[in-house]
Amino acid sequence: NRNILKMAKNTNIRISLPAVCFVWQIAMIILFGVFIRYDEESDTHWIEHRRKKNISTNLENDFYYRYPSFQDVHVMIFVGFGFLMTFLKRYSFGGVGFNFLIAAFGIQWALLMQGWFHHLDEHDWKIKIGVENLINADFCVASCLIAYGACLGKVSPVQLMVLTLFGVTLFAVEEYIILELLHAKDAGGSMVIHTFGAYYGLTISWVLYRPLLSQSKHLQGSVYHSDVFAMIGTLFLWMYWPSFNSAIADHGDGQHRAVINTYLALASSVLTTFAISSISQNNGKLDMVHIQNATLAGGVAMGTASEFMITPYGSLIVGFCSGIVSTFGYLFLTPFMEKTLKIQDTCGIHNLHAMPGVIGGIVGAITAASASESVYGQEGLINTFDFKDAVANRTVNIQGGYQAAALFVAIAFGLVGGALVGGILKLPIWGDPADVNCFDDDVYWEVPEEDENFLSRHPNMNHATSIPDV
Amino acid sequence: NRNILKMAKNTNIRISLPAVCFVWQIAMIILFGVFIRYDEESDTHWIEHRRKKNISTNLENDFYYRYPSFQDVHVMIFVGFGFLMTFLKRYSFGGVGFNFLIAAFGIQWALLMQGWFHHLDEHDWKIKIGVENLINADFCVASCLIAYGACLGKVSPVQLMVLTLFGVTLFAVEEYIILELLHAKDAGGSMVIHTFGAYYGLTISWVLYRPLLSQSKHLQGSVYHSDVFAMIGTLFLWMYWPSFNSAIADHGDGQHRAVINTYLALASSVLTTFAISSISQNNGKLDMVHIQNATLAGGVAMGTASEFMITPYGSLIVGFCSGIVSTFGYLFLTPFMEKTLKIQDTCGIHNLHAMPGVIGGIVGAITAASASESVYGQEGLINTFDFKDAVANRTVNIQGGYQAAALFVAIAFGLVGGALVGGILKLPIWGDPADVNCFDDDVYWEVPEEDENFLSRHPNMNHATSIPDV
Amino acid sequence: NRNILKMAKNTNIRISLPAVCFVWQIAMIILFGVFIRYDEESDTHWIEHRRKKNISTNLENDFYYRYPSFQDVHVMIFVGFGFLMTFLKRYSFGGVGFNFLIAAFGIQWALLMQGWFHHLDEHDWKIKIGVENLINADFCVASCLIAYGACLGKVSPVQLMVLTLFGVTLFAVEEYIILELLHAKDAGGSMVIHTFGAYYGLTISWVLYRPLLSQSKHLQGSVYHSDVFAMIGTLFLWMYWPSFNSAIADHGDGQHRAVINTYLALASSVLTTFAISSISQNNGKLDMVHIQNATLAGGVAMGTASEFMITPYGSLIVGFCSGIVSTFGYLFLTPFMEKTLKIQDTCGIHNLHAMPGVIGGIVGAITAASASESVYGQEGLINTFDFKDAVANRTVNIQGGYQAAALFVAIAFGLVGGALVGGILKLPIWGDPADVNCFDDDVYWEVPEEDENFLSRHPNMNHATSIPDV
Repeated sequence: NRNILKMAKNTNIRISLPAVCFVWQIAMIILFGVFIRYDEESDTHWIEHRRKKNISTNLENDFYYRYPSFQDVHVMIFVGFGFLMTFLKRYSFGGVGFNFLIAAFGIQWALLMQGWFHHLDEHDWKIKIGVENLINADFCVASCLIAYGACLGKVSPVQLMVLTLFGVTLFAVEEYIILELLHAKDAGGSMVIHTFGAYYGLTISWVLYRPLLSQSKHLQGSVYHSDVFAMIGTLFLWMYWPSFNSAIADHGDGQHRAVINTYLALASSVLTTFAISSISQNNGKLDMVHIQNATLAGGVAMGTASEFMITPYGSLIVGFCSGIVSTFGYLFLTPFMEKTLKIQDTCGIHNLHAMPGVIGGIVGAITAASASESVYGQEGLINTFDFKDAVANRTVNIQGGYQAAALFVAIAFGLVGGALVGGILKLPIWGDPADVNCFDDDVYWEVPEEDENFLSRHPNMNHATSIPDV
Repeated sequence: NRNILKMAKNTNIRISLPAVCFVWQIAMIILFGVFIRYDEESDTHWIEHRRKKNISTNLENDFYYRYPSFQDVHVMIFVGFGFLMTFLKRYSFGGVGFNFLIAAFGIQWALLMQGWFHHLDEHDWKIKIGVENLINADFCVASCLIAYGACLGKVSPVQLMVLTLFGVTLFAVEEYIILELLHAKDAGGSMVIHTFGAYYGLTISWVLYRPLLSQSKHLQGSVYHSDVFAMIGTLFLWMYWPSFNSAIADHGDGQHRAVINTYLALASSVLTTFAISSISQNNGKLDMVHIQNATLAGGVAMGTASEFMITPYGSLIVGFCSGIVSTFGYLFLTPFMEKTLKIQDTCGIHNLHAMPGVIGGIVGAITAASASESVYGQEGLINTFDFKDAVANRTVNIQGGYQAAALFVAIAFGLVGGALVGGILKLPIWGDPADVNCFDDDVYWEVPEEDENFLSRHPNMNHATSIPDV
Repeated sequence: NRNILKMAKNTNIRISLPAVCFVWQIAMIILFGVFIRYDEESDTHWIEHRRKKNISTNLENDFYYRYPSFQDVHVMIFVGFGFLMTFLKRYSFGGVGFNFLIAAFGIQWALLMQGWFHHLDEHDWKIKIGVENLINADFCVASCLIAYGACLGKVSPVQLMVLTLFGVTLFAVEEYIILELLHAKDAGGSMVIHTFGAYYGLTISWVLYRPLLSQSKHLQGSVYHSDVFAMIGTLFLWMYWPSFNSAIADHGDGQHRAVINTYLALASSVLTTFAISSISQNNGKLDMVHIQNATLAGGVAMGTASEFMITPYGSLIVGFCSGIVSTFGYLFLTPFMEKTLKIQDTCGIHNLHAMPGVIGGIVGAITAASASESVYGQEGLINTFDFKDAVANRTVNIQGGYQAAALFVAIAFGLVGGALVGGILKLPIWGDPADVNCFDDDVYWEVPEEDENFLSRHPNMNHATSIPDV
C-alpha cells in the first residue's frame, strides 16, 4: 500500500523549510548590513568622484555596458535552467520552482562569498557591488543549478538549500584559487562553473545512491507537453549562451570574439547531436532528451577558450566534437554510471556539463599554450591573458600549464566538496522522499486535480463539442 | 441545463467587439495624424540639429541608451502579464489573448494621453515621440493589465477595452498630478502603476460583484500544465523587474542603484514566499499560486525607492516583508475580501499589487524624508530628487510629505475611477458571461476539441505503444 | 491497416539524416577554415589598428552597439519561429525541433554565402565576420523558416536540410541583387526575407502537393495547450519585431524611427485582427489561428519602410490594412488555395508573410518615391537612401522604381527557386511521410507514452485526491 511506503519516510517540511528560508534570509540581511555597499558607480556620490577623477563624459559609468549581458545571463539562470528541468511528467513544479528558490538564495550568498574573496575593500572592509557583481553571482549559482540536475526529483527543497549554501561557498574558494592564484582564464566557466558544478552534483548523487529508485521509474520520464516545456529552457540557454561566455570578457575585441566563437560552437553541436541521436535509434527517430541537452554542449565546451583566438573553424570543431561526446554520453554512459558506478544522474549533467566542461578546460589549456605573438600581436597577447603585474613574465606555455592545473582544481573541489556535502545530506533529517515517491511533485506541492478526472465526473460541464450533453 | 443558463446572458460580441476595435483604431489613426510626430532624435533632420547644437559625437542620440530597457519592459507587458494569467485550466486563451488585445490598444492611447499631459510641444501643438515614450506607454498599460487581473474570467473583451480606455485616461491624469504637480519620485511606479492599477481593478470587481460566481467554481482553478505556463509569466516578470524599475531612472548611478535594489528585494521575497507558503499547509506543501505571485512582491514594493540610497540590506528587508505580506494576503485576505467585502479578485492583485504597492509608497516616503546630505552628497541629493527649478528649495522632509500625498492620490484615483468605470461596465450591453460561464474560454474563443476525446474515438490512430492496435 | 499504409513510404532516415548532418557540418568546418576569419573589431590586433587609425576612444568598437539587437533577433529565430510552429496537436516536437536544426545549419551556411557575396576581402580572399554578420545570418535563415511554415508536417528533416541549403543560397544571390545591384532599401526584409521566403515555401508546397492529405486531417489541428505554446512564439516575434526591423538600420535616427514605426504598425494589426476574427464567426468567437499569426502582419508590412519618414500615423495605417488582409487570407484564401491552386500551406505563410511582404514592398516603393527634401532635409534624404558614390545622382522617383523592381526580383527568386527545389525534394529518396502520417511526430521522434494511459494502468499511483486508493 502506497501510504505505508510513504510513511517509511517523513517528507513533512513544514518546519524545516520555513525555518531554513527565514533564518538564512535574516542572516543575509544582517551580513548585507555589515558588509555590502553600493560601488562607486551606483552611489549618488558618483558625480563628485567623476569630477575628482576627471572623467569628462558620463561614459565610464554607463549602465548599458554589461547590463544587457546581465539580463541575458539572468534569463538563462531562471528560465533556462528552470524550464530545462520541467521535462519530467510529474516534476515540472519542482524543476522550475526549486530552481527558482535556490537561485534566489544563492545569488545573495554569492554576493557575500565572492565579495569576501574578490572584492573586499581593504580600507573599510566593505564589499562594493555593481552590475558586474550581479553577473558573477548568477554565474556562481549556475554551478549549484547544474548540481541540482543530477539530484532532480530525489531530494527535498531543504536539501537543495544546503546543497546551495555549500556549493556557493566551495565555488567562491575554487574560483579564487583558479582565477586569482593560478591566474587561469575562464570567462565562460567551462572549469569554474560547469566542471565543478557537475562533479559536485554527481558526487552528491553518488553518496545519496538509491538502490530501489526503480520503484518510481514510472515517473522518470516525460509526457508530450513536458518535453515542449523543456525546449523553452533549452532554447533560452542556447540563444543566450554567447552572452554567458562574453558577459565578463574584456570589453572590446574579447567580447566580440567570445560571442562569435560560442555562436559557432553551439550551431555545430546541434547538427552532430541530431546526427548521433538519429543514428542510434530504429528508423532514425530522434530522442528529445538528446535535443534538449546535447545541443548545448558546444556552449559549455567553449567556456574557457571563447576569448582566445581559437578561430571560427576551431569553434566549429569544438562544437562538433562536444555534441557527439555528449549524445554518446546519454546513450551509453548514463546507463553505465547508474548500473556500475551507482551514480543516478537525472538530467544527465555528466553528459552536458562534466564532459563538455572538461573538454572546454583542455581546449582552453591547449589554445593558451599554443598562443603566439604572430597570431595575437604583442599587445593582444598581453591583453588576452592579462600578462601584467605579478604574471607579467609568464609565457603562454606556462599559462597552458596553469590552465590545466585549474581544471584539476575544479574537479577536485567538485569531488571532495560533493562527498562532504553528500554526507551531510545523507542525514535523515532533511525530509527527502522515499524511493517510491521520487520524481513526484505531490510530495512537496499542492498539485491540482486533473481536468480529465474532473470531466469524467462532470461530463455535462465538458466544453468539447464532440461529447453530447446529457 | 447548461444551454438555458447560457441563454440567460447574451455573450455574442460579433458586432460590439469588431465595432470597438475598428472605430477606436481609426480614431487612433486620426489622432496620431493630428498630434503625433517623431522626436528630434528619430527625425532625419537629426544630423542638422546635431550640428546646430554642436553635439560633437553621435552619442547624445544613441539608440542603445534606453532601448534594451524598453525591450525588457515590453516582454514583461506581453509575456509577463500575459502568461501569468494563463494559470486557469480553461482561460489560458483569454488570459494571454485579451492581455495582448488591450495592451496593443492601450499603448496607442497612452502615447496620446501621456503626450497631451507631459510632452505637448507648445509651439506646434504636437507630441514628439521617441523610445522613452514607448517605455512610458508600456508602463501606463501595465496598470490596466493589473486591473484586468481582478476581473480575469468574468468580463468580456469589450468590457476590457472600455476598462483600458478609461484606465489609461485616469492613469495619465494621476501620473501628471503625482510626477509633475506633486513632484513625487516614482521611477518603478509603486504608486502610479501598481497602487492605482490594483485599486482601479478591485473597485471595478466590487461593482461587478457576482453573488452566484460559485456556479463556475469548477473552472476557477488550474491544471498541472496551466500552472507551468503561468511560471513563464512569473519568471519573465521577476527577471526583468530590475529593468522595469530602472528603465526611466536617471542615467548613471540612478539606474545602477535601481537595478541592484530591485534584484535584491526580489530575491528576498522569493525566500519568504516559500517559507509562508510551506508553513501554511499540511506537510509543508507549497502552493503554486503563492510562488507564481508573491515572489514578485519585492519588485512592486521597490518601485518608488529603487532610485534612492535605501542600501542593499534595506532592499532585502523590503523584499522580506512584502513577500510575507503578499503570501498572507493569498491565505487570508482574498477569501475574506470575497466573503465579507464582496470583492472577487481572480488573480489576487490585492496581494501582489495593492498591498506591496502601498508598502512601496510608504517606503519611498520614509526613505525620501530621511535622506541626508551626508549619505547622498550635496549634488547627489539634488540629482536624485531633482531639486531644481520650481522645487529647488524643497527639503527632504517636505519631499517625504509629497511622496505620501502621491500615494493617496493614486489610491483615490483607483477607487473613484474604478467606481465610475465599474458603473459603466455594469450596463447590460457588453456581452459579459453568465455566472455559470465564467472562467471559460469557450464563451469567446473557438476552443479545439481535446486530443483525449479524439484518441478514444480513433484508438487505432493512437501513437502510444501501450495501446494495442485493433 | 495503419502499418501497411506506413510501409507504403519509407520514412527511415537513420542513414540519410546523420549523413547529411555530418557531411555538411564537416564541409562547413573546411570552408570556414579556408574562408572565415574574425573581423578587425573581433581580433586581438584591434588595439593596434585602433592606434594606427587614431580612434581615440574605445567606442568605435563597442560590443553593445548592435549586440542587444542581435540577441532579440536570435530569440525571434529560435523561440519565435520555433514555438509559433508548435500549434499542431502532435507536431510540436517537429515544429520547434526541426526549426532548431535547420536554423543552426542555415546560419553557418549563410555566413559563408553572404560573406562571398557581400564581404569578401579582395586582398586575401577571406570573409571577416563580426556581430553584424551574425544578425544577417539570422535574417537569411528566417526566409527558410518561413518556407518551412508552408511545409510543416509534410516533409522529412532531410528535405528541410535541402530546402535550407538551397534557400540560403538563393537568398544570398537575391539579397545581393536587391541591396547591392538595385541599391534598394529593405532594412527589415519585407521583400528580401518575407516575400522571397513565402513564395519559395509556397512553390515548394505546390510542387509537393498531396491530394490525399485529408487522410491525416485528424492531426491537422491544435489542442488547447498546443495553442498556448504557439502564443509564446507569437509574442516573442511580436515584441522583438521592432528590433528585427531596426537591427541593421542606420545608427542614429534610422534605428529610432524603425522601432517607432514597427511598434505602431504591430499594435494596429492586433486590433484589426481581433476585429476580423470576431466578425467572421458565430457569436463573435475568436480564432486562435488568426491571433497567433495575423497580429504579426504589421511587422512584416513595415519591413521596408520602417527606416523612412512614413510618419507614426502612416505606420498605424499600414498595420491596420495588413492585419485585415492577413486575417481575410486565413478565412478565405487558404481554403481557396488548397482547393483550387493545389497549394497546401500548413501555417498560412501566404497570409502572414507573402501578402504583408508584398504590401511592405509596395509601401516602401511608394514612400521612397514620395520622399522629399522638405520632409527629410537635404542631408537626411541622402543618409536615409544612401545616395552616395555610384547612386549619388539617383532621385527619389527612380529609387521608388528600383524598390518596385526589387519586389519583383524577390517574388521571381521565390517562384523559380521554389519550383527547382520542389522538383529536387520530389525525388523519392528523402524519407518524407505518407499522406496518412503527416503532422505526426511519431514518424521522426521517440514520442513519450501519455500519462493518461499510465494512470489507467496504475490507478494507485495516481496523485489526484479524487480517485480513491484501491
